[in-house]
Amino acid sequence: MSSFRRIGSETIYSGSIVTVGSERFRYDDGPEVKREKVWHPGAVGILPIDAEQVWLTRQPREVAGLQASLEIPAGKRDVEGEPPLQTAKRELAEEIGQQAASWEELKIFFTSPGFSDERVWLYLARELSDAPPAAADEDERIEIVPWPLDRLDQAVAECEDSKTLIALLWLGQALERGQLPRR
Amino acid sequence: MSSFRRIGSETIYSGSIVTVGSERFRYDDGPEVKREKVWHPGAVGILPIDAEQVWLTRQPREVAGLQASLEIPAGKRDVEGEPPLQTAKRELAEEIGQQAASWEELKIFFTSPGFSDERVWLYLARELSDAPPAAADEDERIEIVPWPLDRLDQAVAECEDSKTLIALLWLGQALERGQLPRR
Repeated sequence: MSSFRRIGSETIYSGSIVTVGSERFRYDDGPEVKREKVWHPGAVGILPIDAEQVWLTRQPREVAGLQASLEIPAGKRDVEGEPPLQTAKRELAEEIGQQAASWEELKIFFTSPGFSDERVWLYLARELSDAPPAAADEDERIEIVPWPLDRLDQAVAECEDSKTLIALLWLGQALERGQLPRR
Repeated sequence: MSSFRRIGSETIYSGSIVTVGSERFRYDDGPEVKREKVWHPGAVGILPIDAEQVWLTRQPREVAGLQASLEIPAGKRDVEGEPPLQTAKRELAEEIGQQAASWEELKIFFTSPGFSDERVWLYLARELSDAPPAAADEDERIEIVPWPLDRLDQAVAECEDSKTLIALLWLGQALERGQLPRR
C-alpha cells in the first residue's frame, strides 16, 4: 500500500477543547489530498473493578442530548505534559473517589479516526481503596454507579458511549475466559 | 438526577464534514452551562460475516497518522435523508463489493459524546454475495481484508478504531457463547 506524508496544516478555529482546520498529505504514488481535521488533546478511560463490581458513572452529555450517559470514569488529557496514566489516576479519584494499587494499560484507540486525532488511553484499575478527597470539576454532575459483574450485558445494552462499550465488552470476554481472576 | 434543556446554539465554522460551535443548556435546578460542540452527520459501520471470516478493510486515516487502519466497512451519513440501513447497504457494496440478504441492527452509539454528536449505526450483515459493481469514492484507498473468525483476537490487537473494536469484541462474545450459528 502506498504511504502518505503530511505536507501542510491550516488552523481555522481554536476552541476550548478542540481545534479545527485541515491538513494536506502527499502519497508516494503521486496524488495530494486535503482532509478536514478536528484536533483533540485525547482522553483517558478507566475500567475499575473489584471482586463483585465494575465502577461506572452516569452523567449528562449535553451535546449528545443524553440526560444520563452510563460510562466508565474518564477525562480529557487537559493538563499539558501529564502522562496519561497520571491523568487516569487523577480522574479515578475525582470521579469515583477511589485509588487503585494495580494498573494495566488495555488499549489505545482513536474514537473517530476519519476526522479527528482524539485517542483514548484505556486502563484496567484493580485493588481499589478510598482515595484522599479530591476536588471535582465544579460543573460536573457525576453519579457513581457500582455495577455487578454478573450483569454486564445489561450495562452494554444501556450504554451509548464508544469507550465504555469497548471496556465492558473487553471485560465480559476476559471474565468468561477466566483470564481475570476475581480479586 | 436533574435534567437539562437546550436554550441556545451558535455556529462558528461549517466545514465539509463537521460544524463547530457551542450550545447552552439550562438545568432544572438552576445553572446554565455552555458546551463546545462538533456537529457530525453520523456514520454507519457494517460487520459482514460468512461461515469462515469477517470482511475487514485496511485504509489510510491521514488525520490520525495511520498508514493502514484495520476497520470494518463504514461510511458517513452524507446523503441527506438517507436511512442508515440504506447507507450501510451502499457502503458495503462500495467498500467490499458485497451485498447481504440478512441485516441486523446491533447497536447505536456515540463515538465521543463529551464534545460531538457523532453517532454510529452498527449492523451485522450475513448471507453475503457479490454485489453489482458500484462506483467507489475516487480518493478512497481501500484494501479488502478477509479475516478468519478463529483469529479475532489478533484483529482486536491490531485495530485502533473504536467502532471496529466494538464490532469485533461483540462478535467474539457472540461466537464464544454460540449465539451466532456459523452459516
